[in-house]
Amino acid sequence: MRSIIDINDVSTAEVNTLLKTAHDIISQPHHYRQAAGGKILATLFYEPSTRTRLSFEAAMYRLGGNILSMPSARDSSVAKGETIADTLAVVSNYADIVAVRYPNDGAALVAAQAARVPVINAGDGGHFHPTQTLADMLTIDRAFGRLGGLNIVAVGDLLYGRTVHSLLHALMRYPGNTFTMVSPPELRLPADFVTQLRAGRVEVIETSSLPQALADADVIYMTRIQQERFEHAADYERLKSSYELDAQMMAYAPPSSIVMHPLPRVGEISIDVDSDPRARYFEQTYNGKIMRMALIDYLLSDAEKNPDAQCRREILDSHPDEKLHCANKRCVVHVERGLVPRFYGQPALCAYCDYAAVLS
Amino acid sequence: MRSIIDINDVSTAEVNTLLKTAHDIISQPHHYRQAAGGKILATLFYEPSTRTRLSFEAAMYRLGGNILSMPSARDSSVAKGETIADTLAVVSNYADIVAVRYPNDGAALVAAQAARVPVINAGDGGHFHPTQTLADMLTIDRAFGRLGGLNIVAVGDLLYGRTVHSLLHALMRYPGNTFTMVSPPELRLPADFVTQLRAGRVEVIETSSLPQALADADVIYMTRIQQERFEHAADYERLKSSYELDAQMMAYAPPSSIVMHPLPRVGEISIDVDSDPRARYFEQTYNGKIMRMALIDYLLSDAEKNPDAQCRREILDSHPDEKLHCANKRCVVHVERGLVPRFYGQPALCAYCDYAAVLS
Amino acid sequence: MRSIIDINDVSTAEVNTLLKTAHDIISQPHHYRQAAGGKILATLFYEPSTRTRLSFEAAMYRLGGNILSMPSARDSSVAKGETIADTLAVVSNYADIVAVRYPNDGAALVAAQAARVPVINAGDGGHFHPTQTLADMLTIDRAFGRLGGLNIVAVGDLLYGRTVHSLLHALMRYPGNTFTMVSPPELRLPADFVTQLRAGRVEVIETSSLPQALADADVIYMTRIQQERFEHAADYERLKSSYELDAQMMAYAPPSSIVMHPLPRVGEISIDVDSDPRARYFEQTYNGKIMRMALIDYLLSDAEKNPDAQCRREILDSHPDEKLHCANKRCVVHVERGLVPRFYGQPALCAYCDYAAVLS
Repeated sequence: MRSIIDINDVSTAEVNTLLKTAHDIISQPHHYRQAAGGKILATLFYEPSTRTRLSFEAAMYRLGGNILSMPSARDSSVAKGETIADTLAVVSNYADIVAVRYPNDGAALVAAQAARVPVINAGDGGHFHPTQTLADMLTIDRAFGRLGGLNIVAVGDLLYGRTVHSLLHALMRYPGNTFTMVSPPELRLPADFVTQLRAGRVEVIETSSLPQALADADVIYMTRIQQERFEHAADYERLKSSYELDAQMMAYAPPSSIVMHPLPRVGEISIDVDSDPRARYFEQTYNGKIMRMALIDYLLSDAEKNPDAQCRREILDSHPDEKLHCANKRCVVHVERGLVPRFYGQPALCAYCDYAAVLS
Repeated sequence: MRSIIDINDVSTAEVNTLLKTAHDIISQPHHYRQAAGGKILATLFYEPSTRTRLSFEAAMYRLGGNILSMPSARDSSVAKGETIADTLAVVSNYADIVAVRYPNDGAALVAAQAARVPVINAGDGGHFHPTQTLADMLTIDRAFGRLGGLNIVAVGDLLYGRTVHSLLHALMRYPGNTFTMVSPPELRLPADFVTQLRAGRVEVIETSSLPQALADADVIYMTRIQQERFEHAADYERLKSSYELDAQMMAYAPPSSIVMHPLPRVGEISIDVDSDPRARYFEQTYNGKIMRMALIDYLLSDAEKNPDAQCRREILDSHPDEKLHCANKRCVVHVERGLVPRFYGQPALCAYCDYAAVLS
Repeated sequence: MRSIIDINDVSTAEVNTLLKTAHDIISQPHHYRQAAGGKILATLFYEPSTRTRLSFEAAMYRLGGNILSMPSARDSSVAKGETIADTLAVVSNYADIVAVRYPNDGAALVAAQAARVPVINAGDGGHFHPTQTLADMLTIDRAFGRLGGLNIVAVGDLLYGRTVHSLLHALMRYPGNTFTMVSPPELRLPADFVTQLRAGRVEVIETSSLPQALADADVIYMTRIQQERFEHAADYERLKSSYELDAQMMAYAPPSSIVMHPLPRVGEISIDVDSDPRARYFEQTYNGKIMRMALIDYLLSDAEKNPDAQCRREILDSHPDEKLHCANKRCVVHVERGLVPRFYGQPALCAYCDYAAVLS
């Protein structure tokens, strides 16, 4: 029995299987109308996200299954002090598969460890959101027929942007990609990530000029600059309009390029781009539903064949260490009662959120 | 592909078709158990309304379909600044039909323009709520076997009451109706509406005496006086008890009359009326479910036959005009980012909310 | 047509039938996959409780039915001042059966009186929660094969603990049980309840020593000490850690005993007990789903055979009395508009919440 916490949990072979299933769902959806018949998906959204929740629920319905929905934690036992682990142990008695979203980094791993059914991470803080990445990969695959040999131009908040980090991680595996990073200096891709990419033989170009970057783009990946990332409103206001894509700007981009955005947008892409055939951000949400269908179908089949829950790699490879402390304030280890912190590697990283550990 | 924003979107022939379907659903519900099998209705309630939402959802289930539910906007991408248009473009990838409720006048039109599936207006501010009107029409039709030649006595808040306005609009089309309007002077039917009704050869009687009006009533339509309409609590308190219907008052009404109310009631109808066979306000909610079944069935069939979305009359007949400004503070044009205001007629009215435009 | 407000509504013969159905559901779930096909359960949770709601909803899905969900009253017509009675009269037009949770004692009885479909009480304030008790009974029955001749050790808040009171009431009916009550002096079982149990020939032992009580335990029933029961935080802090069950403490308990808890726990049971085979608190939630399936199935069948709603015993046996007043501030009679208080017995008790009446 498998859970999906991180896009790295999905091997390249599995990505190919999921993409193949996705294409099959698109061309013959009727074959899948009862694929999850009689099964239940629980959507536990401790942090509300209507769009992501509805995408998972639509995916489950299109597979013939049913939905237990928790749209927000205000209504939950959390208010009575229940741990994530206890909630997942209970919900495992109600549902056959769970999609969980939680505001703290690493929470999905805690959920997966406690559940006796497959768990899909639908976003744990600023950490992972693997089904968004799968949606992005299907969108690129549908447009270009491949995931390698492409110039990916990512624009906006590259420092905090979980979506972009995850996509770059996933596309690193495919040969011949170039990553062109367009951001204000304050929001550049983290330096160690650039180092990691280059070590993986990925060409990384950093620039602050959008028109120049667009000239050779295959994929133009726009991202939202989130107000909540800034302490001062003025910094936000100044930066948010830095990289707006409009019809005029699109003149710089090749006819074969595509425009993506994880949505919601709040001004990064002008509505005059919507009618451009290169705009794929709404199709992306369709692809998200399709990849969620493929993933749910895959995990339910796997759970039937291998009913025993596997202990996850993050747990197996790590160990408790009372001398260490996770330095990430948003990490789940600081909120989940009874959770023993675990660490791996040298220098040590937190097994839950992958942030640096410090001496306690 | 059609959307229903306003009761005026439904022709008299279509009302007759819907009523016919409704009677058929009542007599042989099993014929409709798979009418929407495999389809999904999204209920997007930016403004919560449990009763209306559950009515739509029950209707969809009784047709064999499934539900994506957004009970309130607190959990939505709206909090992240997403436009109605973007949300509807996304949800069109998840659902086959959408019921939308929004606090701003005209929002349902914005939703319908952006969606690639049929949209049903489940209430846009004080503007329209066409399925309530359809429920009312079925209730009258079931009681009298006709929608004309009746004396409709409307009681309560006739100035702001969206429900009554909409019902009168719908019943204007049928010959021989008399509208008896019972209200305190502060809450009389708007003068221009009275003029419009009389121009349409409808007899309109205005009175403040409930007993007198009841004597000749066929339909007694009670409405709630909404606290939120008053600036001063004292005004509300004084008026709300003006027109209470109780068992004693019912003695004035003919045995063949019926009592209706869009619910919830908060004192307009005493509970001692509930056991009176003339009370039809709970049956009205049943009829609402039935008419929503008929409407969903109709719109889904229509969307299959005519998959292309028609540009709506309100948009076709109007034009942008930078010199004009919608004077209605509750209009959607003041909240939806990127929406270009449009106007029609002379003097100009806002294409979204139908209120008067002013020079900007 | 029956509703279930209180565990005492379920006769011993009916409990046996429900247990038999439950065992059958566990061994051959496929027989029940369409037992409620085409039916709708409405979960009206005026007071949020995600776990209980999801349990009811999972139960209905496993019977092939559908769900109308109201996760909280924030989104409801209650905000517009609608009575419970009116809401239930309306929802009876949408659903075939209703599970209702409400913060006021006695609210479920008001709901059942107004509904034209079966109502299941999913918790009315501190009053009743019969499906929790049914879950507990199945858990004991699965472990011991009987509900009598057992030593039930209840630990924690025995003064306010609705769950324990209800379970003791239910187990009183079975011969040979001993109730061992472990609590701090402030939270002892109410004296009149002890009297009542002893009058029913139940042996009641009261102690404050957990290890001693565990030695002869069959069922160890742990309960949460609820912060909201205390005026002073300090009292709560002192008491909550009084009776923590951990692996060390479990050494005192016999190998054949079982540990139960209605969940959520907030420290009453250490997580090192989770891997003990005697731990049954997660299985309890599974059993809750199964008993809710059995109960929904039973009530839907009953409603089809006997479509007329029976007036409930609490109403039949009571009468209005203007000289009396319910002394329970949390009683529904103080919040439900138009509800006539009723009383029974001598000295008089409130028919809704069973608390003592006082002269008004």
